[in-house]
Amino acid sequence: MSKPVIAIDMGGTKIKAGIVQQGIIHSSLSIDADSGNGLRQRLPHLQEAIESLLNQEGLSTAEIAGLGIASPGIVDSIQKKILSIDKKFGDAPGIDLEEWCLKTFNIPFCIENDARSSLWGEWKYGKAKNYDNAAIITLGTGVGSAAIIGGKLLKGKHFTAGILGGHSVINYNGRICNCGNKGCVETEASTWNVETIAKSDINFAESPLTHAPVIDYELVFRLAAEGDQVALRIREQSVKAWSACAINLIHAYDPEILLFTGGIMASSTQIIPFIRQHIEKHAWTPWGTVHIEEGVFPGTAALLGIAHLTEHS
Amino acid sequence: MSKPVIAIDMGGTKIKAGIVQQGIIHSSLSIDADSGNGLRQRLPHLQEAIESLLNQEGLSTAEIAGLGIASPGIVDSIQKKILSIDKKFGDAPGIDLEEWCLKTFNIPFCIENDARSSLWGEWKYGKAKNYDNAAIITLGTGVGSAAIIGGKLLKGKHFTAGILGGHSVINYNGRICNCGNKGCVETEASTWNVETIAKSDINFAESPLTHAPVIDYELVFRLAAEGDQVALRIREQSVKAWSACAINLIHAYDPEILLFTGGIMASSTQIIPFIRQHIEKHAWTPWGTVHIEEGVFPGTAALLGIAHLTEHS
Repeated sequence: MSKPVIAIDMGGTKIKAGIVQQGIIHSSLSIDADSGNGLRQRLPHLQEAIESLLNQEGLSTAEIAGLGIASPGIVDSIQKKILSIDKKFGDAPGIDLEEWCLKTFNIPFCIENDARSSLWGEWKYGKAKNYDNAAIITLGTGVGSAAIIGGKLLKGKHFTAGILGGHSVINYNGRICNCGNKGCVETEASTWNVETIAKSDINFAESPLTHAPVIDYELVFRLAAEGDQVALRIREQSVKAWSACAINLIHAYDPEILLFTGGIMASSTQIIPFIRQHIEKHAWTPWGTVHIEEGVFPGTAALLGIAHLTEHS
Repeated sequence: MSKPVIAIDMGGTKIKAGIVQQGIIHSSLSIDADSGNGLRQRLPHLQEAIESLLNQEGLSTAEIAGLGIASPGIVDSIQKKILSIDKKFGDAPGIDLEEWCLKTFNIPFCIENDARSSLWGEWKYGKAKNYDNAAIITLGTGVGSAAIIGGKLLKGKHFTAGILGGHSVINYNGRICNCGNKGCVETEASTWNVETIAKSDINFAESPLTHAPVIDYELVFRLAAEGDQVALRIREQSVKAWSACAINLIHAYDPEILLFTGGIMASSTQIIPFIRQHIEKHAWTPWGTVHIEEGVFPGTAALLGIAHLTEHS
């Protein structure tokens, strides 16, 4: 059996770290991402977390095959650098993470985009296992995506292919996105923008959302289920926007299966059936219907995927 | 030198046929497509056209290496069948074109989607020559697209990858498209829909467009240049829609160059500079800027591309 690896998933809210071996997460823990203050200040805390995981498992770094990071943004997996990152961890492109890994742990380093890692995890161990043509939409702080075509992870010359599904234009007369584009899926429906969307509703003042300290999708879906009109409208707009995103990925990459994953999937019963129906009705797939499924590892697909990529790099 | 081939470009208005050899079109002619009445009734006329081309060149079919068709719609280039076609040539999926080719000319047969053929032509002989990562948008009756990634034509498992850029959603609250989807690029801006778009303008009755026997983009761009307000609004909406389409292709496929081709490129000076500016401002390409260019073979890229594919099949 090959050695375990250290897998890290750099989320916008939490950074997860785990000791993973051939698809098994032996142990894991999370630290606050505090991503608004950048990644550099997190590295000592991350080191500490990893060391405590190693202690817990009774492992020395000599018994570890490598360390892999699943990161948001555009990642050059060959030069092992974060090229560009949207808002969160703004200082990351200037940090030599491979050097940090070698200096701190003296083990091989691997890095890939987080949505690509999630799809890879679901492809190797989860829901996409039997499909050589698959795509994923990750609904977290933003909206991520990735595609596998003919058994290969789509990357493109500048490492942007597949991962910008959340920045496909679905409303060409819409608002400017964080990324500088207009009418992206993320501006129409994502955690980072849901508060702005809620506040722009004409009946916002009469909704229980007004009194919430934080407006997130957990709350929106809960209030929508209770019948709040504002929450219902946000839910409708959001699910429509994610359906359009799904169509754009299906039309772009020709997958057999399209997975949804990420924190918002906690409300999947209010999302997946609608998207399935939308795809059945509106996608141009004369060969049949794309399977629309929830990933089986909503919290750990990226860890499993980056661990596999690290084990085989 | 290898033998010449017969190349056919099945357009919605005209069917072009040519004798082509290694990037040189020795001779060509067009017949009316009459596509609303289907493809089957056109085959005798097409045969006649090809025979007259062969006579003209003093060639017998024994001296021809093969016959290739660039077709709109979803094309299975392995089984050599048209799988699905949107409106034009509605009967084509039921016709065994390979059998027709063998019975009529007794030479090898090849078929590919027309936008893929155009990109292949521009990649082998034209503007995309030095780029292994390229995409195309064809503005004809509809809006076609194709992509080359890492030197390979993107096809996908069911032959839909790359070619449905005109059916990416850019207005998710928009109208139903011919294809059954909602808010496609084609519904917002294409030749088949421009009359409907014009008639929905609030000032249509006061525009010279009202008196036109046919409303097409040639007229719209001419009247826009003359300052007609309705034509100006259609032009603005159309160029914005094609810009959004360009962003979606750039974000999906990570090309170095994106070409525009097709009949509407006769008005390219009113289109390309705007799209170039839009891409510079809004595309998320931290590595630099995608080249936005007009193809060098606006009328013949598909013929050249399908000829090359036929020569090498």
